[in-house]
Amino acid sequence: MENLPIEPLNNEASCHNDSTERKSHHSQEVKKALVSRLNRIEGQVRGVKRLVENDTYCDDVLTQIAAIQSALNGLGKLLLEGHMKSCVVERIQEGDTEVLDELLITVKKLMK
Amino acid sequence: MENLPIEPLNNEASCHNDSTERKSHHSQEVKKALVSRLNRIEGQVRGVKRLVENDTYCDDVLTQIAAIQSALNGLGKLLLEGHMKSCVVERIQEGDTEVLDELLITVKKLMK
Amino acid sequence: MENLPIEPLNNEASCHNDSTERKSHHSQEVKKALVSRLNRIEGQVRGVKRLVENDTYCDDVLTQIAAIQSALNGLGKLLLEGHMKSCVVERIQEGDTEVLDELLITVKKLMK
Amino acid sequence: MENLPIEPLNNEASCHNDSTERKSHHSQEVKKALVSRLNRIEGQVRGVKRLVENDTYCDDVLTQIAAIQSALNGLGKLLLEGHMKSCVVERIQEGDTEVLDELLITVKKLMK
Repeated sequence: MENLPIEPLNNEASCHNDSTERKSHHSQEVKKALVSRLNRIEGQVRGVKRLVENDTYCDDVLTQIAAIQSALNGLGKLLLEGHMKSCVVERIQEGDTEVLDELLITVKKLMK
Repeated sequence: MENLPIEPLNNEASCHNDSTERKSHHSQEVKKALVSRLNRIEGQVRGVKRLVENDTYCDDVLTQIAAIQSALNGLGKLLLEGHMKSCVVERIQEGDTEVLDELLITVKKLMK
Repeated sequence: MENLPIEPLNNEASCHNDSTERKSHHSQEVKKALVSRLNRIEGQVRGVKRLVENDTYCDDVLTQIAAIQSALNGLGKLLLEGHMKSCVVERIQEGDTEVLDELLITVKKLMK
Repeated sequence: MENLPIEPLNNEASCHNDSTERKSHHSQEVKKALVSRLNRIEGQVRGVKRLVENDTYCDDVLTQIAAIQSALNGLGKLLLEGHMKSCVVERIQEGDTEVLDELLITVKKLMK
């Protein structure tokens, strides 16, 4: 409605849209945190596979599956937070509100 | 990645409660299906890790996470079905209705 | 596998399958608890309607919706618990394991 | 059941932040759609109450609860969409990016 804040984006964590594809640049810290969580989730999945192969009682396997779902949900929230606090803000500041349409589609997928 | 214990599975599908711990014996077929799904999910998690390391745009990563959640949910349903159609029925037929209390606890974890 | 416990069911809380349709008899207590929760949920839904009509800020409305979802989830767990501890046990004791197939279908609906 | 405050709605769709509190003005159309969905959900909740009072078989009641959850989820998505396409865009255009922090909190509540 009013003026959009016009400010050059020269900071590192940017979501540039160069040439072919859009990229997301998390800080090294965030990236490390995400990868570490993903490694843990990968280990949990492998753990469940071992449980199945060892004929562990189903209740215990299902409990592990619930734990992975919870870990994935946490990861999704972390990633969404990083996304909204960097890429979404930046693209909006560039006057690109289309980013909100994309965000809506993504969030809906995570809601069901 | 790790060595899996190699043990012959010569019984059909029983949920015996011998000595120390309860075991669940899926048929070889079901087990194969479960392990194959788990391998796919493990691949998906590794895929997401690659996406994060390559700074793929967050919306795409979040969409992948939603896909893994959906795959895990499917796996949970399959496992629950196997459990209810074998162990739960058997234990009930042995007069052990405590199995239903355990089932209730497990199902509640999967509902949230 | 073994003998089914054969015992006459003469207790009040039964899930009889007479003539036309199956019925569920919760105890008066459980029924009261369920109805009281449902009244509260109905009030919450009416409250959200008022919020929308009064143009309350969306975040607040969405928070209320999340609260109703949580209340419904709690109600579902309570009902499932009542169901498993009465009808499911009883029908199984009557030798009717088909009840587990029905239960599986229901639980799957609550899992997604 | 209660009297609803009757107040004229003469503005389009703004999310003004006047005096005391923030308001959300959906268009009359969206508002009508939301209220109509809420009326239906209220009816569904009352329906479940009747089922419980009539001792309807639990599986059927639980299926109805799953249906209400699904309807609420749909309502949440509709409301979130309206919110993001009006209030969020407007406040951002006014230079108020704080709206994204609020949105993040709300979305997280809907994700679990």
